[in-house]
Amino acid sequence: MSGYFDHIEKIKYEGPESSNALAFKYYDPKKVVLGKTIEEHLRVASCYWHNFCWDGHDIFGAGTFGRPWLKGAMDQTAATQKLDAAFDFFDRLGQPFFCFHDTDVMAAAETPREHVENFAAIVDQIEAKMDAGSTQLLWGTANLFSHPRYMAGGATNPNPDVTAFAALQVKHCLEATHRLGGSGYVLWGGREGYDTILNTRVGHEMEQLGRFMNMVVEHKHKIGFKGDIWIEPKPHEPTKHQYDRDVGTVYGFLKQYGLENEVGVNIEPNHATLAGNSFEHEIEMANAFGIFGSIDFNRGDPQNGWDTDQFPNDLRETTLALYYILKGGGFKKGGSNFDAKVRRQSSDAEDLFHGHIGGMDLLARGLINAAEMIEKDTLEDFKSARYAGWGEGLGKQMLSGNLSLTEMADAALNQNISPAVRSGKQEMLENYITNAVK
Amino acid sequence: MSGYFDHIEKIKYEGPESSNALAFKYYDPKKVVLGKTIEEHLRVASCYWHNFCWDGHDIFGAGTFGRPWLKGAMDQTAATQKLDAAFDFFDRLGQPFFCFHDTDVMAAAETPREHVENFAAIVDQIEAKMDAGSTQLLWGTANLFSHPRYMAGGATNPNPDVTAFAALQVKHCLEATHRLGGSGYVLWGGREGYDTILNTRVGHEMEQLGRFMNMVVEHKHKIGFKGDIWIEPKPHEPTKHQYDRDVGTVYGFLKQYGLENEVGVNIEPNHATLAGNSFEHEIEMANAFGIFGSIDFNRGDPQNGWDTDQFPNDLRETTLALYYILKGGGFKKGGSNFDAKVRRQSSDAEDLFHGHIGGMDLLARGLINAAEMIEKDTLEDFKSARYAGWGEGLGKQMLSGNLSLTEMADAALNQNISPAVRSGKQEMLENYITNAVK
Amino acid sequence: MSGYFDHIEKIKYEGPESSNALAFKYYDPKKVVLGKTIEEHLRVASCYWHNFCWDGHDIFGAGTFGRPWLKGAMDQTAATQKLDAAFDFFDRLGQPFFCFHDTDVMAAAETPREHVENFAAIVDQIEAKMDAGSTQLLWGTANLFSHPRYMAGGATNPNPDVTAFAALQVKHCLEATHRLGGSGYVLWGGREGYDTILNTRVGHEMEQLGRFMNMVVEHKHKIGFKGDIWIEPKPHEPTKHQYDRDVGTVYGFLKQYGLENEVGVNIEPNHATLAGNSFEHEIEMANAFGIFGSIDFNRGDPQNGWDTDQFPNDLRETTLALYYILKGGGFKKGGSNFDAKVRRQSSDAEDLFHGHIGGMDLLARGLINAAEMIEKDTLEDFKSARYAGWGEGLGKQMLSGNLSLTEMADAALNQNISPAVRSGKQEMLENYITNAVK
Amino acid sequence: MSGYFDHIEKIKYEGPESSNALAFKYYDPKKVVLGKTIEEHLRVASCYWHNFCWDGHDIFGAGTFGRPWLKGAMDQTAATQKLDAAFDFFDRLGQPFFCFHDTDVMAAAETPREHVENFAAIVDQIEAKMDAGSTQLLWGTANLFSHPRYMAGGATNPNPDVTAFAALQVKHCLEATHRLGGSGYVLWGGREGYDTILNTRVGHEMEQLGRFMNMVVEHKHKIGFKGDIWIEPKPHEPTKHQYDRDVGTVYGFLKQYGLENEVGVNIEPNHATLAGNSFEHEIEMANAFGIFGSIDFNRGDPQNGWDTDQFPNDLRETTLALYYILKGGGFKKGGSNFDAKVRRQSSDAEDLFHGHIGGMDLLARGLINAAEMIEKDTLEDFKSARYAGWGEGLGKQMLSGNLSLTEMADAALNQNISPAVRSGKQEMLENYITNAVK
Repeated sequence: MSGYFDHIEKIKYEGPESSNALAFKYYDPKKVVLGKTIEEHLRVASCYWHNFCWDGHDIFGAGTFGRPWLKGAMDQTAATQKLDAAFDFFDRLGQPFFCFHDTDVMAAAETPREHVENFAAIVDQIEAKMDAGSTQLLWGTANLFSHPRYMAGGATNPNPDVTAFAALQVKHCLEATHRLGGSGYVLWGGREGYDTILNTRVGHEMEQLGRFMNMVVEHKHKIGFKGDIWIEPKPHEPTKHQYDRDVGTVYGFLKQYGLENEVGVNIEPNHATLAGNSFEHEIEMANAFGIFGSIDFNRGDPQNGWDTDQFPNDLRETTLALYYILKGGGFKKGGSNFDAKVRRQSSDAEDLFHGHIGGMDLLARGLINAAEMIEKDTLEDFKSARYAGWGEGLGKQMLSGNLSLTEMADAALNQNISPAVRSGKQEMLENYITNAVK
Repeated sequence: MSGYFDHIEKIKYEGPESSNALAFKYYDPKKVVLGKTIEEHLRVASCYWHNFCWDGHDIFGAGTFGRPWLKGAMDQTAATQKLDAAFDFFDRLGQPFFCFHDTDVMAAAETPREHVENFAAIVDQIEAKMDAGSTQLLWGTANLFSHPRYMAGGATNPNPDVTAFAALQVKHCLEATHRLGGSGYVLWGGREGYDTILNTRVGHEMEQLGRFMNMVVEHKHKIGFKGDIWIEPKPHEPTKHQYDRDVGTVYGFLKQYGLENEVGVNIEPNHATLAGNSFEHEIEMANAFGIFGSIDFNRGDPQNGWDTDQFPNDLRETTLALYYILKGGGFKKGGSNFDAKVRRQSSDAEDLFHGHIGGMDLLARGLINAAEMIEKDTLEDFKSARYAGWGEGLGKQMLSGNLSLTEMADAALNQNISPAVRSGKQEMLENYITNAVK
Repeated sequence: MSGYFDHIEKIKYEGPESSNALAFKYYDPKKVVLGKTIEEHLRVASCYWHNFCWDGHDIFGAGTFGRPWLKGAMDQTAATQKLDAAFDFFDRLGQPFFCFHDTDVMAAAETPREHVENFAAIVDQIEAKMDAGSTQLLWGTANLFSHPRYMAGGATNPNPDVTAFAALQVKHCLEATHRLGGSGYVLWGGREGYDTILNTRVGHEMEQLGRFMNMVVEHKHKIGFKGDIWIEPKPHEPTKHQYDRDVGTVYGFLKQYGLENEVGVNIEPNHATLAGNSFEHEIEMANAFGIFGSIDFNRGDPQNGWDTDQFPNDLRETTLALYYILKGGGFKKGGSNFDAKVRRQSSDAEDLFHGHIGGMDLLARGLINAAEMIEKDTLEDFKSARYAGWGEGLGKQMLSGNLSLTEMADAALNQNISPAVRSGKQEMLENYITNAVK
Repeated sequence: MSGYFDHIEKIKYEGPESSNALAFKYYDPKKVVLGKTIEEHLRVASCYWHNFCWDGHDIFGAGTFGRPWLKGAMDQTAATQKLDAAFDFFDRLGQPFFCFHDTDVMAAAETPREHVENFAAIVDQIEAKMDAGSTQLLWGTANLFSHPRYMAGGATNPNPDVTAFAALQVKHCLEATHRLGGSGYVLWGGREGYDTILNTRVGHEMEQLGRFMNMVVEHKHKIGFKGDIWIEPKPHEPTKHQYDRDVGTVYGFLKQYGLENEVGVNIEPNHATLAGNSFEHEIEMANAFGIFGSIDFNRGDPQNGWDTDQFPNDLRETTLALYYILKGGGFKKGGSNFDAKVRRQSSDAEDLFHGHIGGMDLLARGLINAAEMIEKDTLEDFKSARYAGWGEGLGKQMLSGNLSLTEMADAALNQNISPAVRSGKQEMLENYITNAVK
């Protein structure tokens, strides 16, 4: 126990009627929905970075949280204190999973050797913590963006020495993820892009990234890691432009470098919306391409044009997201990580619990809604009828590849086709969703 | 001569000091730059649709232009009158190229047979006009978005009958483009997307589109058309979401359906910015993927979130765009089409000339700037130095594919690398550009 | 009866468990909430323009709806047919209110005299329809943006003759609104702004608008109209920039021209978000300035940067909006007008019902949630505690105006104040809202 | 001399043909334009905060600049070292003005007394530096947003103790600005807004702010400060919403609290665009309201939705801005402060010079363009003709207030007016600007 959360009781499920702000109202982990428990469906994770590494500073102001372990240098003692706090938190929350960057957990390092040693030291401690508790590792990732050396990118840096340091971090973090039983490994290209295209060779940098990703995949197989590898799309911020812009763009990149069967995506709603896509769109694109992996649940602010990483609270969006995830087969190796942070003004220790409780309740409530939608699948039925024409005649022939443009055109001409408009029934379907969200 | 433009003299080049608003100040078509004339470099085109088919209406108000040929039904007589006006305009402007949709030029048709007949009739007339003048066809395209039948898409419609009509239009338009000596054929998927994902099978619709595009490519080869085929990316509008979102997304689509060597892109700045990308970015992406084709020059309004299709007037952006186009080898089959319209309040006939003169002067001025930048290529030199590390040692080895993650990581560890930050010199390079733009 | 809606039964309230898509599930008009019926609270209105004047065209395509009364010229016969359809619709829906523009309802007119005569003719018919049914007029407005004469504005046109025509329309529409028992009169400045600042005298145009608004107010008093006058803020579209940008900007304009006690605002969520404000923000601003009037309920698309005017379906947003409206005293003269249109693909007559049913159910459900929130007002209690310091000591003194900067500063110095951070509890409050929305 | 810039020669004017990246090409301070020197027109200032207080960190990564004075605690020694560097920089650049926040310049303080003492100590040193050099103070401002105490605002904090601390800072900073001969005093309400409206009394907070601003104005008069007071509008960031959203909103606030004759605005282009307005629009609004004060020149990134504070490089926008500023009478107390920072990757000391040289050259070039535009004022002539109708007849009568709505309407009716559309000539005017920008 870390002392920091001593005043917070273990969070319990109390049901929707509870007025206890520090209890779950919908997240009943053992409740069974569509044949699995809520816990098994959602695979909820807390992230290390926003909760335990951030002191509440923003670009216009200093830290407001006063976390004891962040007050001095991040040496081995502080790293251990942080680890104690994190697992104390996971335990009180009953959180089944967590996620981390290498630099989140370890004592600060400057040289390659320090990096390897400090990281190894804390991985031992993490393993012990995990053995003693019930929180597992959802995924790990290497931080290739915070140290000044990465200011112009990791894998896409103009200086290959920086990429070598990145390789060092990824190798060790991937191996640690494997050792700690992680289900996946994520690469977020926070600096893999550019601040100005004037000094940048876009094609060259994508080549670097393509080869780097292949090296990671080869290493995964070499060490026998059975987890998945996921790219996390984001269009910009901190850089002006990031190559892993959105699911469609990432798919193009994967195809170009022969990675489409090896690498999937970790989708974040706030990144989706910054790229001009809806959250549901990104899930459906990943489903269509067969690269759906995991989710970093959060939300942005619709009036603010940057990554606010807020805890999700839109039940309609969450219900739809989980509907599409379930329709795509549900989470396999992936899960629901909260890449979300409490607001800078939320300076109480208990605010971390409010954020997570709200998010977990929302996911559970959305899951229950989505499951009901699937049990009597009105949307699916509607779409089946709407696309029925493609299962027969001209439509079927065209999709089978056995029709030339001329044959298709001649069919139109000879049959004198005059297709009538058919209502898309958008309002009716939207009302259906509104009523299904409860 | 159509009568409509009789009060406008043929536009001449008068040089930068001219105070004649109806003269070119920079667009001197025969001036030689980097070994070719400005005309040969830019291959400027006027579009049929904004100039001759639009009456100035917007979604909140009726037409303001009073074009005589748009006052009644679009029958064969009106189509001929429109054609006369268009070629009269091209002639007075000295425009080397034009672009059109099938439905722009023809008498309105309802049935497949009417479509074929009315289109054939006007193509004969276009051919005669082209023979009599000096304006050539840059590219043609079929309008698969204006008729109510296409409200849910052409190739991606849930009803294959609609796709058959689309096939009919594309076949005939592609063949006409071939006959009229067009350099390219464009597909803009204005309704190939969705208004709500609730009624849409995203994966299925992309399959439809993939097969349709392959049918088009097969037909091109069958008829011996030597021009290029280009997709025009746009993220949304009129639909909520269009599949051909941006260059990166289109590339993923092309790779998925084996089209990346057959189909390129027609990039539009206003579409680029609606998708959250800069114009230069889209050009460089197309260059990197080897799919650069043509440009629809225009600009959006930075405070308005829809496609305003304004004539370009940003000399810095235009200079940079032409620099990247020239660096990629310049236009081959493609060219500079103005997919731009005068404002709804620009109700004089001569305003069409002001729009085009401003755009053509801007392109010429940008081209001259870009050519100077290339002659002493400071940007290229800077980038060569910046990426020099990848031409030797570890960098070269990694790119060659002969290095494992472990070898790369071990090199970092054993050499105790500690890469120093190196300034990206963004402000210095931006100042260089500011001074090169004149 | 118009014939157009004959296949639609009168819409009934059937409760949340009903699976009838053409029944109300929450909108039970006579249900009492906080001492008034739902109908009295919400004062729901349908708009004439989107439902009966729009044929489904957009800027990229032709009409899709096939409304019989829109097929030919808008003469007196067609206007009557439209009126029949509108009141048939209102009746089947049980809609208590409607709203209209002068040009929505009347036969098309070109000259001032035609305008006056055609408008007068239809107002007689409207009055008869209203007498025969139970739908009342919420508000009227003059269309000063659709006719080409208004392309550069109505009150702010560079040509005072256009403003004179605008005065004619407003005078007659205001008088008709008075005669028909309307509760309010709206001015939306759709073209009161500019397409380019290059040809515009911003200050001069605001002077024109200020005087015009005062003339309207004077006329209201002269004729004894007891309803309210409201400006409807919107930042842009159709113009690049509109002067009535948002509530804060409108308030500045009202203060500048001495109108702040005479004119309020009609807030539209989709306009609020286009201006970069949340819907709740605009309501709270209007409450703070004492100018809250009425609501044009709709929503935009978060990925699209133009006015999509969709029926609302966000229960959280609607609940919060109604909470703030109720806290501000609820609707007085104003009400809940749906400035919303079914999608262009929603081509069935019954889709108009789906849109309205969804919207009315949403408002009713939100109202019930908001009423519960007010009965035990957790937000109010939280804020009372948070701002308690301003009711005493230094805070109270400062607000009373009896404290100089030096006195305030010296208090800080002499008391050696060291204010501790106090959590804003955002996540806790958001969870409270999430749970209150059901 | 600080040592940090020893390798940089004093920056000289060398003219447009110079290829020296560390020389001015257009900023020739003593060149006379429209009767004043460029230096007198522009009144260029460097800001203390971005140049000397920021180490290159962003929200995703640590500092990259390695400024020696930022390496340890910000004690008196470090503050002095920073001051030496700043004035060394101003001197080498030949910068006529600078701007600062109180906390930028002083040793860090925690208590009120420390604040007063540490600030007083450095003000003495600043005065000595100013006496020894030729750089003057354009304006000062108190930082009411970086310390954790201000996380919920300064003047608008729910805790009046925080507002008392704010009063202390403003009093001392205003007095220091007076003593140091500053021309203006700025209040930027970086936290005067909210992160969530759920915990916020919007009206109450505006009351607090209104009274606070009046206290500041009263104090200014009391101490005899002859400079101006300016609010700097910004819509959001760091908060979700800031009350001083844009010029129009600020004007409403000033009118509400009787401050419109006492307080003006300091306009920043990047804030303007974040609020959805163009830079020119904000200048013209301030001119129209008579509250134009000063400019914080910078630019945002059109693809990024946050305040990037980049050095300006858009010559067209800058030319237009200076045209409107000159047309409004030019800078009086205000000037051209660069609220701009070099990019995080611009880690060389000389990059600070590149940023400023580029900005100053741009302003000078824009000023020369704007002056030429004014000498033969085509825009003004065009507008005079366009609005001529308002100087006579009906238009003049209406503006004079001597016309009722009925009289205006009757004039339209009786004269049977039928105003023809008149082209707004947008493209012609835009071409004029394009050609004027060189």
